[in-house]
Amino acid sequence: MYVICSDLEGVFVPEVWINVAEKTGIPELRLTTRDVPDYNVLMRSRIKILEEKGLKLKDIQEVIAQIRPLDGALDFIGWIKERTQFIVVSDTFIQFAEPLMKQLGRPTLFCHSLVIDEENRIIDYKLRQKDPKRKTVEALQGMQYQVIAMGDSYNDISMLKQAEVGILFRPPDNVIKDHPELPVVYDYEELKKILVKYI
Amino acid sequence: MYVICSDLEGVFVPEVWINVAEKTGIPELRLTTRDVPDYNVLMRSRIKILEEKGLKLKDIQEVIAQIRPLDGALDFIGWIKERTQFIVVSDTFIQFAEPLMKQLGRPTLFCHSLVIDEENRIIDYKLRQKDPKRKTVEALQGMQYQVIAMGDSYNDISMLKQAEVGILFRPPDNVIKDHPELPVVYDYEELKKILVKYI
Repeated sequence: MYVICSDLEGVFVPEVWINVAEKTGIPELRLTTRDVPDYNVLMRSRIKILEEKGLKLKDIQEVIAQIRPLDGALDFIGWIKERTQFIVVSDTFIQFAEPLMKQLGRPTLFCHSLVIDEENRIIDYKLRQKDPKRKTVEALQGMQYQVIAMGDSYNDISMLKQAEVGILFRPPDNVIKDHPELPVVYDYEELKKILVKYI
Repeated sequence: MYVICSDLEGVFVPEVWINVAEKTGIPELRLTTRDVPDYNVLMRSRIKILEEKGLKLKDIQEVIAQIRPLDGALDFIGWIKERTQFIVVSDTFIQFAEPLMKQLGRPTLFCHSLVIDEENRIIDYKLRQKDPKRKTVEALQGMQYQVIAMGDSYNDISMLKQAEVGILFRPPDNVIKDHPELPVVYDYEELKKILVKYI
């Protein structure tokens, strides 16, 4: 039986940090895993910028609360959940994800967590484990499931390759160029045409 | 971070087979894992009875479509999902579970599947793996989650014991007697009082 593991940002909601960069007027926060493949380098840089600018968790959460899912995302998730099990596997943090997950009907989410100090400053982050997206697929395969994985960025690649079926959804050109072996789709209708072969 | 794994029947919905026994007037179908700890013995017997009585998958599905979640189940699941990740781990079959999961907002479900012939008869069943409930907890622990598990029957015990926190929910007396080491609660409010310590 096939289950679906999907990335969150870029697939169902816009990139959170790009929105934060725009609303806060801090262009340096625009960078994502699409631009910087090393997630640790990226996160350390984000935390340093927030500290320098005096932005706290609640400031970021206010921005995230204004983000809406991509057009058609909720219907597409509904379509999947009528057919099989659906798990969101993201490198986001639970403190950021909540207002987005609520809008998506709170599907199961596996992600990370931020470390917040008593003054509501983001002082660190806790990655659940190394290569968490691939390990989620492996855990499901260990439970005798087959996995269809979807994502758009460098941090999705190991998940897409570990899965029985891996699909790039609206990836930027550099990801396509670096991974010509993966199929690429650009909208939910195209994605459905692949998924109906399995679920 | 704690996630929750819960049994389905007896915790969020009534026992499916007891309902099927009542609506079909076949008392032999009343037996559940509460009564017969060996699930394979139980399922072979059920399939044999259905064959003898000429009952097909659609007949059972019609009965299941009439079953409603237990009072307060949907609110309680909503309460959990606001706080952490929630996974239903059941020894039911995907073909039976769908009308129940729909009523529960389709949380993620890990379960089994039936083998149906071209005349819609249930001819066999496919267990996803041996001891699937314990293995689900182990898979989540391998993903660096801690697990709170809830269930009511013999087939939940290995899951409850593998979890960091295992709770019996409305178990029958024989389960309590055989497992005095596990805490027992009888309603969702009592359960919340335990859960708020962790989530």
